Amino acid sequence: MQRHDAEVLLVGNELLRGERRDAHLAFVAQAMQRTGVRIAECHCVGDDIHAIAEKLRERMARTRVLVVTGGLGPTDDDVTREGVAEAVQQPLEFRDEQWSHIATFMASRGRTASEANRRQAHFPRGSEVLANPLGTAPGFALAYEGAHVFVLPGPPPELQPMLETLVVPRVSQLFARPPLRVETFRTIGIAESQLFEILGETTFALRAYSVSWLPSIAGVDVVLTQKADADAGALQAEADHVHTRMQEALGSKYYERGVRPLALVASDTLRHRTQSVAVAESLTGGSIARLFTEHAGSSEVFLASAVTYSNESKISLLGVRAETIEQFGAVSEETCTEMAHGIRRRVNATYGVATTGIAGPGGGSPQKPVGLVFLGVAWEGGSQIKRVMYAGDRAVIRDRAAHGALWLLHDRLART
Amino acid sequence: MQRHDAEVLLVGNELLRGERRDAHLAFVAQAMQRTGVRIAECHCVGDDIHAIAEKLRERMARTRVLVVTGGLGPTDDDVTREGVAEAVQQPLEFRDEQWSHIATFMASRGRTASEANRRQAHFPRGSEVLANPLGTAPGFALAYEGAHVFVLPGPPPELQPMLETLVVPRVSQLFARPPLRVETFRTIGIAESQLFEILGETTFALRAYSVSWLPSIAGVDVVLTQKADADAGALQAEADHVHTRMQEALGSKYYERGVRPLALVASDTLRHRTQSVAVAESLTGGSIARLFTEHAGSSEVFLASAVTYSNESKISLLGVRAETIEQFGAVSEETCTEMAHGIRRRVNATYGVATTGIAGPGGGSPQKPVGLVFLGVAWEGGSQIKRVMYAGDRAVIRDRAAHGALWLLHDRLART
Repeated sequence: MQRHDAEVLLVGNELLRGERRDAHLAFVAQAMQRTGVRIAECHCVGDDIHAIAEKLRERMARTRVLVVTGGLGPTDDDVTREGVAEAVQQPLEFRDEQWSHIATFMASRGRTASEANRRQAHFPRGSEVLANPLGTAPGFALAYEGAHVFVLPGPPPELQPMLETLVVPRVSQLFARPPLRVETFRTIGIAESQLFEILGETTFALRAYSVSWLPSIAGVDVVLTQKADADAGALQAEADHVHTRMQEALGSKYYERGVRPLALVASDTLRHRTQSVAVAESLTGGSIARLFTEHAGSSEVFLASAVTYSNESKISLLGVRAETIEQFGAVSEETCTEMAHGIRRRVNATYGVATTGIAGPGGGSPQKPVGLVFLGVAWEGGSQIKRVMYAGDRAVIRDRAAHGALWLLHDRLART
Repeated sequence: MQRHDAEVLLVGNELLRGERRDAHLAFVAQAMQRTGVRIAECHCVGDDIHAIAEKLRERMARTRVLVVTGGLGPTDDDVTREGVAEAVQQPLEFRDEQWSHIATFMASRGRTASEANRRQAHFPRGSEVLANPLGTAPGFALAYEGAHVFVLPGPPPELQPMLETLVVPRVSQLFARPPLRVETFRTIGIAESQLFEILGETTFALRAYSVSWLPSIAGVDVVLTQKADADAGALQAEADHVHTRMQEALGSKYYERGVRPLALVASDTLRHRTQSVAVAESLTGGSIARLFTEHAGSSEVFLASAVTYSNESKISLLGVRAETIEQFGAVSEETCTEMAHGIRRRVNATYGVATTGIAGPGGGSPQKPVGLVFLGVAWEGGSQIKRVMYAGDRAVIRDRAAHGALWLLHDRLART
């Protein structure tokens, strides 16, 4: 049986009990993708020496590269070292120089290395230590019957730089492959099946790429991934063709060729025009501010967001009139308009964006049910307000409203 | 070989390419945990009929319950139906009544069911349809050589209610088991190894529980999970003992027995005292507002957050003095103090919480490097400001600062 290029093995009871959501697979997969290596499968097992060892033996026989994450901490539920040692039938060895490294690291944080940390200086015989500059748990690498195994600590701030600097270069060398070309086209405001109706004919005709349709709360992405035998000339031409077709058919619903999220696309447009934006959020509760400020450099165009939950704060921070709230309610077109204009004027922004609505589960009424949201964008001399009804629970309604507001801004920018 | 209770099989190229992060395992695991059923393993394969079928056959022989998610959409990369049909050696059948359901659903959204949607009315012969009230993709259930297989659509807003209403009750009936007792104790501001030094002796002595130590940016959780053969009396006594020990040893660093996040713990304390909070955020960019407003009912205690990125917005929205920013800089103890007091006074809150700092990667200097953050809490007649240095990238520094600010508020509430 042919070996897979690469697989990931996640270790942790917390994943299988739902106490934590995995963040590693996506990160490892993205990094590998850049080396042209595809993760063929991912597996997850609990913190149990024999379960880890059994799964390791099974997977080491099936893949060339195996990235193992988690279970290298100082506590007694961290048993990945022991599981790997059992799988490769080697004892764990204490390494003095790693123990010194751990002690030095702890001292630099004003702490003393504990007996618990001593476990982290143990490695299966024959393995190579992978240094961890940001934590006490070093990783390690070993080769076993044709499989290259890389074992990394679980905390993402430690795993991520180690993967980038220590694992990716070796994997890249091992396969010596050019990366596969991937083209992403992002849309918002159109259902997956509708998008497929419009574009299916175009994508069926592609010879150089396979196609994925990826719906999420932020919209549907169409992702083209290069086939192994693709013709170099066709790669550019076919991607350009899809781009042109989407522009024609979708207008501002097609907002990005590439992987920038909508907030970054809007920010880049604003920066290019030396314009700015400020936000007045009610039900979205800071989500729009977070989407704008995730990216470095956002301070050039994103001036402020006022998350105004109470009516009083809408009045004092945004200058919404008490009469407006009294007459029309906090969730109304009128209040939304005054919020968008209010924040724009307060901080002197080109555009003001506003959201007000009912995220639920409580607070709805027959006239204003849960899911009712007003989205607004205001500029000097005008505004546009959109009334929408979102289905879903509190978190979904909040996220949809945040992306809906960004889309309204993007649409306005596309028209001017 | 003994069968596992339950496993999860995630289907999707997007997961193996890092284009999406899985949200299903955690949700399925939490739901199963309530029925006393543990997920023993999780597997992830791509959108490939044979890979799906092969993995299914392998896992159906090893587990009693198998929850399969994803790949039921309308587009041609959705091939889970075909994979399952191959694995159980049954043809796919078109079902009229499901096709009517899909057409009715689309019509209710003002759209027309397309040819693409027709694929979603196909099911492996002998399987039972699981209705999807929120989307076009029904799920299905089938039994095969001792395994109960539940196949659910990928979008979380559709999968989650289907799992709760259609899958969990059947699994619960199948095993007829009391749920395992799980006790969570949440800490912040202490490293995992330190916590283990302090509590290890206590936890080693536990007979009724196994112990997990779960570090994250929000702090370290200590999770006790009931052993299968635990004595009922010991369950309460041992959990109470851990609680008391943590109270004595950790003070306000131990903030929750249960699963409430820190923002909710602080909100509940404020609600109980009929007090309120408002936030002035700089580098945290709306994160603190989001943490407060995630939970229904937050509007009673959370009045507002002003995300003030520009200096001008700090002045106009918060009333920070221009001289203060000029003399000490936007990232300074003085500005942080005025931000916390400013938002508190503007919206008439009991407490004002503020953050200002340098999240990077740009914007640092030798005097004020990336990672430098001031956290503040202010009240009528006083304030406390904390200067901290966080390691990590932009996202990590932002999240650490948001949780650090919540901790400062919680600590203040614990002292008064």
